[in-house]
Amino acid sequence: MPSDIPADSIGLVTPETLHFDTPLALSCGRVLESYDLVIETYGKLNADASNAVLICHALSGHHHAAGYHSMEDRKPGWWDSAIGPGKPIDTNRFFVVALNNLGGCHGSTGPKSINPETGKPYGPDFPIFTVKDWVNSQVRLADRLGVSQWAAVIGGSLGGMQAMQWAIDYPDRLRNCLMIAAAPKLSAQNIAFNEVARQAISKDPMFHSGHYYEHGVVPKTGLALARMVGHITYLSDDGMREKFGRELRAGKLSFDFNNPQFEVESYLQYQGERFSTSFDANTYLLMTKALDYFDPAAEYGHDLVAALSHATCRFLVVSFTTDWRFSPERSRETVDALVAAQKEVSYAEIESAHGHDAFLIPNPRYMAIFAAYMNRVDAESKALANKESNHAS
Amino acid sequence: MPSDIPADSIGLVTPETLHFDTPLALSCGRVLESYDLVIETYGKLNADASNAVLICHALSGHHHAAGYHSMEDRKPGWWDSAIGPGKPIDTNRFFVVALNNLGGCHGSTGPKSINPETGKPYGPDFPIFTVKDWVNSQVRLADRLGVSQWAAVIGGSLGGMQAMQWAIDYPDRLRNCLMIAAAPKLSAQNIAFNEVARQAISKDPMFHSGHYYEHGVVPKTGLALARMVGHITYLSDDGMREKFGRELRAGKLSFDFNNPQFEVESYLQYQGERFSTSFDANTYLLMTKALDYFDPAAEYGHDLVAALSHATCRFLVVSFTTDWRFSPERSRETVDALVAAQKEVSYAEIESAHGHDAFLIPNPRYMAIFAAYMNRVDAESKALANKESNHAS
Repeated sequence: MPSDIPADSIGLVTPETLHFDTPLALSCGRVLESYDLVIETYGKLNADASNAVLICHALSGHHHAAGYHSMEDRKPGWWDSAIGPGKPIDTNRFFVVALNNLGGCHGSTGPKSINPETGKPYGPDFPIFTVKDWVNSQVRLADRLGVSQWAAVIGGSLGGMQAMQWAIDYPDRLRNCLMIAAAPKLSAQNIAFNEVARQAISKDPMFHSGHYYEHGVVPKTGLALARMVGHITYLSDDGMREKFGRELRAGKLSFDFNNPQFEVESYLQYQGERFSTSFDANTYLLMTKALDYFDPAAEYGHDLVAALSHATCRFLVVSFTTDWRFSPERSRETVDALVAAQKEVSYAEIESAHGHDAFLIPNPRYMAIFAAYMNRVDAESKALANKESNHAS
Repeated sequence: MPSDIPADSIGLVTPETLHFDTPLALSCGRVLESYDLVIETYGKLNADASNAVLICHALSGHHHAAGYHSMEDRKPGWWDSAIGPGKPIDTNRFFVVALNNLGGCHGSTGPKSINPETGKPYGPDFPIFTVKDWVNSQVRLADRLGVSQWAAVIGGSLGGMQAMQWAIDYPDRLRNCLMIAAAPKLSAQNIAFNEVARQAISKDPMFHSGHYYEHGVVPKTGLALARMVGHITYLSDDGMREKFGRELRAGKLSFDFNNPQFEVESYLQYQGERFSTSFDANTYLLMTKALDYFDPAAEYGHDLVAALSHATCRFLVVSFTTDWRFSPERSRETVDALVAAQKEVSYAEIESAHGHDAFLIPNPRYMAIFAAYMNRVDAESKALANKESNHAS
């Protein structure tokens, strides 16, 4: 952490583990008998619980969305740019809940956890989760926290898909749905990149069919490769050109294969290496499957308008011009379906060179639109609180 | 081969190995003392050798560009769509030369060849070739064949880069340069994808630092992964959507990791697997480096206009709308530089859903433009032949 906590930071935060004993039935047909969810909360829940906001994370995300865990932390939570006092998700006004999803590797029950049936880590036997399953687990979390209706469910990328699923499956339990840099389903190209990542991991000899924990090893090479491929799809061609161009690390070509020569090679290797020592390979596999399987329209005869017609909340959809993982075109599919379903939707396409990663970066226009929308959410929550207190009086 | 040879096929063809004894100095500072080039030729060289056309291959290409090697061949050469009697590169009119480049794995001297200094395969010790080096070797080939000036040097992708290098380095030795789906240099994103491919290969435990021949193994897993990544970049998002969509092989989600579920996964795995048993990993590494290193403007103060100002030939530049490996924008960079250098250039941007692979597919407009240009090349060659025979008479 910087020696001075920035004024717009939520500051030091502490995760919390919640245990759930009610069995959770999953889309795959299996049942998770009990599980833990690790969460962080920022801000205060108001008296009528009308100011609660749920943050859903993306592929490699987790519950630590804002603030710092200790004075030694070099970086804050993954969405600190958007969550904090005076930020779009204003912790002075909202009670913000962020969780690590089931199947994750940051404390919630996942492949690294002990399978009570075997006494060993689940490993590859951990059930394949869907976005729908996650939302079901998040409903339990809302119940536990006393939140009968979220002021907003918010997510970027895979997180935005969870927000969409909430709007479809639990229309009464959220007033606003914010889908940022998301898509109503993956394209063949998206699935193809995920499949390369899965092949890289599962073909790593250290993977041991997913039982690597028991061998005391980690499929680092495969996971690093998976991350390198992923990383290319998070950045934009333009952004990479701006950031790296064809800059040579040693100033000239070395004519060998032993060292990275272009800056971009070195950067990618570093990203892959770092990720491979901090993330769990089985979790990575599960997250890519959740992405591939996400297709809420499938239940409604592949009609996205029919699926979204169940929603009653308002929507903010945001896309970024150079995002080619989930391009603006994909967000417009969602917007068009919402319009056809006669829902209230705001849409912003943000000019950015940062590709898919732009959803994590505090671009001024993005933050302004985000804040303006959240101001309305806040006003709505307050109106609701007043109404209820008037009722009570 | 089909039981009937198609009327527009060159038919059965036979490769030929040419040995070269004059040492070839390379950009890396090393010298290749002697080497073999495997070539195929189609059509007949005319009396004044004015009808010769050189075909330069792309990353995974080789000398077998057209026709069939035997009656058992299921597929013709890789550019059979463009080369043959009556096709754009009309073998009734042109003497067509296709080669396997040095460093290749289809018969020309490469990593699989015996290093005369050690008596073992070169493996990773084979020198890293540049496009410039290849062109130098191709000049020797032209000399050997008695071709003092190519009617045209033609290539797609990495092949188009060789054509560009010819125009810059040997302006007197070609009258036309056809650069199809190419770029004047790789972008950071292009290099990044190549680096993922290289990491996949070199981190495969079967790679043995490139000495796998001696271990009797092949880094199949790494090579398959490299090809899978490459393949995604050869296709377009739209093309993949059209071809595979989100079709499920078994009609429903299986909730397991053991089998490919979406058609696109199965397709990619098949492509990777097939390639990994037919291509040499060290060659793949070399080819990706040649791509990364290609930057003819670098020698001219990074001024592409200055580089191209040396050219005296005419140019045809072709790009394809959905090619995101070397997008139309990259071809326009070349065209703009040629225009600025006051060269004669024709440019066609072809509507196609096939991405980078489109350069291999006989799209009617592409073939018509290609044929029209080659008709002019032919007319020019004939005029030159008449002029010379008038001179002689």
